[in-house]
Amino acid sequence: MATAHQSDGAAAANGKSNGHAVPPAANGESNGHAEAAPVNGESNGHAAAAAAEPEEAVEWNFAGAKGGVLAATGANMSIRAIRYKISASVRESGPRPVLPLAHGDPSVFPAFRTAVEAEDAVAAALRTGQFNCYPAGVGLPAARSAVAEHLSQGVPYKLSADDIFLTAGGTQAIEVIIPVLAQTAGANILLPRPGYPNYEARAAFNKLEVRHFDLIPEKGWEIDIDSLESIADKNTTAMLIINPNNPCGSVYSYKHLAKVAEVARKLGILVIADEVYGKLVLGSAPFIPMGVFGHIAPVLSIGSLSKSWIVPGWRLGWVAVYDPTKILEETRISTSITNYLNVSTDPATFVQAALPQILENTKEDFFKRIIGLLKESSEICYREIKENKYITCPHKPEGSMFVMVKLNLHLLEAIHDDIDFCCKLAKEESVILCPGSVLGMENWVRITFACVPSSLQDGLERIKSFCQRNKKKNSINGC
Amino acid sequence: MATAHQSDGAAAANGKSNGHAVPPAANGESNGHAEAAPVNGESNGHAAAAAAEPEEAVEWNFAGAKGGVLAATGANMSIRAIRYKISASVRESGPRPVLPLAHGDPSVFPAFRTAVEAEDAVAAALRTGQFNCYPAGVGLPAARSAVAEHLSQGVPYKLSADDIFLTAGGTQAIEVIIPVLAQTAGANILLPRPGYPNYEARAAFNKLEVRHFDLIPEKGWEIDIDSLESIADKNTTAMLIINPNNPCGSVYSYKHLAKVAEVARKLGILVIADEVYGKLVLGSAPFIPMGVFGHIAPVLSIGSLSKSWIVPGWRLGWVAVYDPTKILEETRISTSITNYLNVSTDPATFVQAALPQILENTKEDFFKRIIGLLKESSEICYREIKENKYITCPHKPEGSMFVMVKLNLHLLEAIHDDIDFCCKLAKEESVILCPGSVLGMENWVRITFACVPSSLQDGLERIKSFCQRNKKKNSINGC
Repeated sequence: MATAHQSDGAAAANGKSNGHAVPPAANGESNGHAEAAPVNGESNGHAAAAAAEPEEAVEWNFAGAKGGVLAATGANMSIRAIRYKISASVRESGPRPVLPLAHGDPSVFPAFRTAVEAEDAVAAALRTGQFNCYPAGVGLPAARSAVAEHLSQGVPYKLSADDIFLTAGGTQAIEVIIPVLAQTAGANILLPRPGYPNYEARAAFNKLEVRHFDLIPEKGWEIDIDSLESIADKNTTAMLIINPNNPCGSVYSYKHLAKVAEVARKLGILVIADEVYGKLVLGSAPFIPMGVFGHIAPVLSIGSLSKSWIVPGWRLGWVAVYDPTKILEETRISTSITNYLNVSTDPATFVQAALPQILENTKEDFFKRIIGLLKESSEICYREIKENKYITCPHKPEGSMFVMVKLNLHLLEAIHDDIDFCCKLAKEESVILCPGSVLGMENWVRITFACVPSSLQDGLERIKSFCQRNKKKNSINGC
Repeated sequence: MATAHQSDGAAAANGKSNGHAVPPAANGESNGHAEAAPVNGESNGHAAAAAAEPEEAVEWNFAGAKGGVLAATGANMSIRAIRYKISASVRESGPRPVLPLAHGDPSVFPAFRTAVEAEDAVAAALRTGQFNCYPAGVGLPAARSAVAEHLSQGVPYKLSADDIFLTAGGTQAIEVIIPVLAQTAGANILLPRPGYPNYEARAAFNKLEVRHFDLIPEKGWEIDIDSLESIADKNTTAMLIINPNNPCGSVYSYKHLAKVAEVARKLGILVIADEVYGKLVLGSAPFIPMGVFGHIAPVLSIGSLSKSWIVPGWRLGWVAVYDPTKILEETRISTSITNYLNVSTDPATFVQAALPQILENTKEDFFKRIIGLLKESSEICYREIKENKYITCPHKPEGSMFVMVKLNLHLLEAIHDDIDFCCKLAKEESVILCPGSVLGMENWVRITFACVPSSLQDGLERIKSFCQRNKKKNSINGC
């Protein structure tokens, strides 16, 4: 724990301690409004000119960047930025350890240490000295084959090495897919609400229009399929489904996924299936790869080692092309992915080289143990939330590492919104949650249960006492 | 050697062996013309429809991607793609080992094995199990501080951790800088010719206009500074200088760099200094970091472990912000970089964690040994080229891993251009060179001397016998 959160903390802190290249978290934070950024910039603009003015004033042509999407939107668009913002509210002097329940990274708990076979495979590949070289742009062939074989087990046809594009984590998979879709002029993409904001951020960077469809809490966070048809048009190129779902913790049924494939085909769009939590299923509902329906509508599936092997820091993921009818090949989507990756960074070569051994040698016991831990903590999480009337969880988590929880703000005193809730909670209780507004649902929060049970229990009790301390006075419900 | 080149070879080969998700190298190759791509796509379009037509024909909205920049331009824009294209010309049955003199990656030669201290540091960080977690978006603070301290030795002021943004190799540094500059509507950037095509590719992806200035072979590949002023306007946001220079092997003088800084200030633009070869200086001319002139014009310097430590596959680099007058801070360039990195992939956390030890513990002897090897092979390279009248090297390399060499095509029979030269050379001699046209200079080639002397000597002799075999008959010069 120490490491990761000291880093984040330090990063934010540094930003504040001097006026130097302030990270957006620290920076955005102080005002919280994206609009404030340029203003802020302006006022400093003079200072800069002054500083650069031994002889003459210089007009710097790149000053236009001040008003750019990147200069302003960080804190609104990235979970990292919002996390740093919330973390910065923690009192350094706080008596209790900081409990980071905002993001899905339990790797820092010894109980969640990755499989020894995986660690050994990476160390061995490094020690050969044979994998210090650049990899091929789309990944080492042996690693691509291993992933193809691994994923073929879940679908009624066989994937080949050429269907697998290795990426530096699921994050880079998003970086690749969005610009490939943005090639079509005027294109738009359908994204879930709540969702994962890296998709929105990348779409903004690539000027790809985003249209949102809702996930329905009362229906186990299923996609509102009717609404898909109402928001799509002939410029709609793709839709995203995250299964097992981040941030909702739901696992979609065969029946629901089949419906999604049918509507995608009807709309003439491909399906981006974010399946990075594919192995993390806690309930009886099994995980069905979207690729099972690849013959109905083509699928770009995003996977990675990060979540299933608890190694997000290793940065190894992939895009798997489920394209049995060769539509993505004929429309050169696969070629576009290759071209993009040829001028992009890669996963470390020695980690790629270890992938076949990682996939082959990791014992089922490892996954059993991890899923056992997650199942236990997900149950603690659901139970404790049920016992806290100030927050509501509409659906028991069945997978991934998260639940979405509604804030009953009408029962709370002077808590304006989810950001305010998270900042005050961080300040008073040193518990970090992810505000729902960054995920598209204001006045909700995302809580991760990917945490050792004792810490999670502690965190949920702190949330409860925070709510009770801030409950609305003279409110019948509030008493 | 085996590894890297089996991978590349295999990748290309796979592409050819079946019609499935063909890499652009293999694909582009067969026709060589970007325009051919859509045509190709069209014809397949029907096949796809047919295949997807159990019930009804489907119009796939994403088919527009077929005409997109990513669908077509790969082979023209990326060294990797062109390398796969050239490599595909090698006869599998060739009697001699393939000599890859196209790209700067000697890591596969035992003689170029990285420093043991560096390898140990990465292995140790991995084995702690403490660095499987996500890093902070801009890098681990300890690693950023270590780079700041390392780079501060070269400039008359001190860099802080906040001036350093860790990236997944120099490649990701380019991925970050270009979109940050592209934020300014109508912006353009000045790039050197010859240059490094990832800049052009990223600019195209981000719709940032590129204007080229020439490097002058007769002046040791110095920048044609007068031409800079003639091509720049008030929409020009930045210029790129690569020093030590890839692909030319030159190392720029203090005087030349000072001139560059002055003209950048006059034009109101920032300087992107690609300094990934900073430690690889072979002659008496020292490497001067562009940051020395940061008070004249602000500098974004790109660095990495890849070349100096011979570990391109570790994917660890950085953007260093040399901004003593705080112009890049005030214009929110630094904030934009942070925001972009917060939604981008990262270098592996355990490699970041090893960085302080790598920088501190690597012995001077390691660099002495590597530079000794490169110096020896650069001299062999220059000497052998001088003795081959069919190619001309206008300037003896002083740094980096490359020389640019002019093809005297008037002395050669039926060699149409640099691509033709490289393909035929690969076919007849199993020697891979990088055609100059992908670097902006048609009918030149880039040769790397980052190779063990014996292999380099062999490669240059093969080039000579290729030229002699293909010399123009009945030409006085040719005899």
